[in-house]
Amino acid sequence: MSLPEPVRRDTRLDNYVDRYAARAHGMTASAIRALFAVANRPEVVSLAGGMPNIADLPLDAVGSVVHDLVVDNGRVAMQYGSGQGEPMLREQICDIMRLEGVVAHPDDITVTVGSQQGLDLVTRIFCDPGDVVLCEAPSYVGALGVFSSYQCDVVHVAMDEEGLDPQALTEAIGAVRNAGKRVKFLYTIPNFHNPAGVTQSLERRQQVLAVAKAADLLVIEDNPYGLLGFDGEPIPAIRSLDADTVVYLGSFSKTFAPGFRIGWVLAPHAVREKLVLAQESATLCPPVFSQFAISAYLAKHDWRSQIKIFKEMYRDRRDAMLAGLSDHMPAGTSWTVPEGGFFVWVTLPPGLDSQSMLPRAVTARVAYVPGTAFYADGFGSRHMRLSYCFPTPERIIEGTRRLGEVLEYEMSVNETFGTAIHQGSFKPYEAPGANQT
Amino acid sequence: MSLPEPVRRDTRLDNYVDRYAARAHGMTASAIRALFAVANRPEVVSLAGGMPNIADLPLDAVGSVVHDLVVDNGRVAMQYGSGQGEPMLREQICDIMRLEGVVAHPDDITVTVGSQQGLDLVTRIFCDPGDVVLCEAPSYVGALGVFSSYQCDVVHVAMDEEGLDPQALTEAIGAVRNAGKRVKFLYTIPNFHNPAGVTQSLERRQQVLAVAKAADLLVIEDNPYGLLGFDGEPIPAIRSLDADTVVYLGSFSKTFAPGFRIGWVLAPHAVREKLVLAQESATLCPPVFSQFAISAYLAKHDWRSQIKIFKEMYRDRRDAMLAGLSDHMPAGTSWTVPEGGFFVWVTLPPGLDSQSMLPRAVTARVAYVPGTAFYADGFGSRHMRLSYCFPTPERIIEGTRRLGEVLEYEMSVNETFGTAIHQGSFKPYEAPGANQT
Repeated sequence: MSLPEPVRRDTRLDNYVDRYAARAHGMTASAIRALFAVANRPEVVSLAGGMPNIADLPLDAVGSVVHDLVVDNGRVAMQYGSGQGEPMLREQICDIMRLEGVVAHPDDITVTVGSQQGLDLVTRIFCDPGDVVLCEAPSYVGALGVFSSYQCDVVHVAMDEEGLDPQALTEAIGAVRNAGKRVKFLYTIPNFHNPAGVTQSLERRQQVLAVAKAADLLVIEDNPYGLLGFDGEPIPAIRSLDADTVVYLGSFSKTFAPGFRIGWVLAPHAVREKLVLAQESATLCPPVFSQFAISAYLAKHDWRSQIKIFKEMYRDRRDAMLAGLSDHMPAGTSWTVPEGGFFVWVTLPPGLDSQSMLPRAVTARVAYVPGTAFYADGFGSRHMRLSYCFPTPERIIEGTRRLGEVLEYEMSVNETFGTAIHQGSFKPYEAPGANQT
Repeated sequence: MSLPEPVRRDTRLDNYVDRYAARAHGMTASAIRALFAVANRPEVVSLAGGMPNIADLPLDAVGSVVHDLVVDNGRVAMQYGSGQGEPMLREQICDIMRLEGVVAHPDDITVTVGSQQGLDLVTRIFCDPGDVVLCEAPSYVGALGVFSSYQCDVVHVAMDEEGLDPQALTEAIGAVRNAGKRVKFLYTIPNFHNPAGVTQSLERRQQVLAVAKAADLLVIEDNPYGLLGFDGEPIPAIRSLDADTVVYLGSFSKTFAPGFRIGWVLAPHAVREKLVLAQESATLCPPVFSQFAISAYLAKHDWRSQIKIFKEMYRDRRDAMLAGLSDHMPAGTSWTVPEGGFFVWVTLPPGLDSQSMLPRAVTARVAYVPGTAFYADGFGSRHMRLSYCFPTPERIIEGTRRLGEVLEYEMSVNETFGTAIHQGSFKPYEAPGANQT
């Protein structure tokens, strides 16, 4: 007696897997994304996310602004708009960039769905599969995701206490070109780097620009935090030093509010023309109501004072984090001291691995982003990014206390049972601007 | 005596032309875009644009909705949100789609920056350069732009009075596959087609779906106008007939307002996962404030009655256009009779060319979109798209009067001087559902 033939069942979870584009294989969930679910639980102190704290925004005033906008001008503000973005907002953007020394014409600006979409559109018009993009080591996780989705090869360039190292940049360009590959641009975050927390001095910006110009290389300057410096005047943007070599990305997400999803790209005129065509293809036009709302807020509200309020609030939180780290981190841990922005980059004692440690940290009710998220090449396991932007100072200090306990525990386990040292974790460019406690 | 050597000048207008990605070469300004500048002059009756008429929206009520949203919930509504889109809005979207027979779970929806971005993301995850996309002949100009920007090959499929022809679809799939090319999906607009103005009957939808399933082909169903039918109940969406084969694109641009830039994609679960990753890479998250605003509008306002008001208003305008065409078009002109939506597709008398005629039409203070905009292959010169959505009925009738004079003049010139007949203009699939006046 024979058993019946087993019925063939389709066990693939994704019936469409054979049909996706090659680029879809590069679209994978980021560590930050996977963390959101746990880190949002109220008992967890999340030092992971990059959400700005918008609690200080004048909600009554903003509410009146959007009410009047609909009632007085709703038929325009709720209609389709320009693919390039609304002219009045583009003028106001020029006023804002002037605070960092950028002199620009509104016609050279393309409004985008947050500066994330600016980066997506810039990559879309410049990068073929296999093209190389140069990024700092480490670099913004969302940028790495964009470059991966366009099938670019990311080559990381070392940083030091002043950010991107011009000598390392020269060498990286040479090495890539000697390998017969094509570099499309350098992507850099000069102010209050995400995740490294360091800032390029003016002299450093001049050096980086000189290297890029000598190599005939475009510079993509990503500057979401530039106006959130804690002390003194903003350092001039790289774009203020050269209009032809630099494509500048700006955002209202940190100086106003991210939910409107409005950023911008300032680019040389010919590039701007391509960007507008790409924007029309991607969305027809960026969110019109959001643009009118921000434009009215800027016109009717003292936004400079609002930014000052934000800066002082974030400085207090930065100070809380630095104090907490000093009090609670075990010996052998180091971190950067940001002069603005949202992030501190921590280097763990030898033998610790931020990625494998994460589940225990979440169990101890503290979350961070493992350093590996900020590298395209698997490095970063001895680092973590801590953000101080969203939790209160008290919660930040409590978070560092919990984190300190996790590190102490990990070290005691390693001492007891030994540990494998990950070779990849000790490359010099993995410790940008580390300041020993 | 010799003249000095001439100084070599860089005469390229675009210094970056050598650096663009291959896909950027497919990004060119559309006929619609070039028209906006002239068609927006007040003295021109524009029958060109597809802007909805949102003058009937209750601005006071919407103003109160957004005011209360900021004051009561601004810290959430103005913050970063979900890459997939806000859960409450996704539930409401399911309620809306139920009106066309679609039963869907909120978790299978991805919110997008208008349905244009839905189409961009779907193409992004499915299409490699050289992949074939099947489209109706003619098809939506914005879709052709997306397919071009992803370097797809568009193959047009004939239509008749009931829209896409299933027999022609079968033949097109066979021809493409015999040529060794890969078809990634069929893109179709079943309701009140843009630009053709025709609608697939339920039986036709079943036939199209059967052909697609037999060929193991995904169907992208683009349905921005489905709820704007002038008579009777909506015909069930193709998606209501099959959940695995159909990716459905929806939009609030025509049933509420386009300036919030909110659309959605309903897709099988595995595809939805890719879409969310693509959305996060493209924008981090779709506009949060827009989503909360629409969600609150849907919850607090009788949006079904509002859609009824829109339908009656558009029906009056459709009637005005049909009357104007009957009164003013010369013999030999034919057009479709849309049962909803925004557009009439006109077939000109032999010998006329809508593209070359356009400058004279604009001089006569009437604008339209030449049929060539809706073909990827250069056909369409004997057609034009007329929209009745935005101008008042009186302006629509005046527009058709001016257009009739332009046609009469062109025909008299042709009679006097003779004309070259464009071979390409007489392919049978260029006259979808043409009803002789």
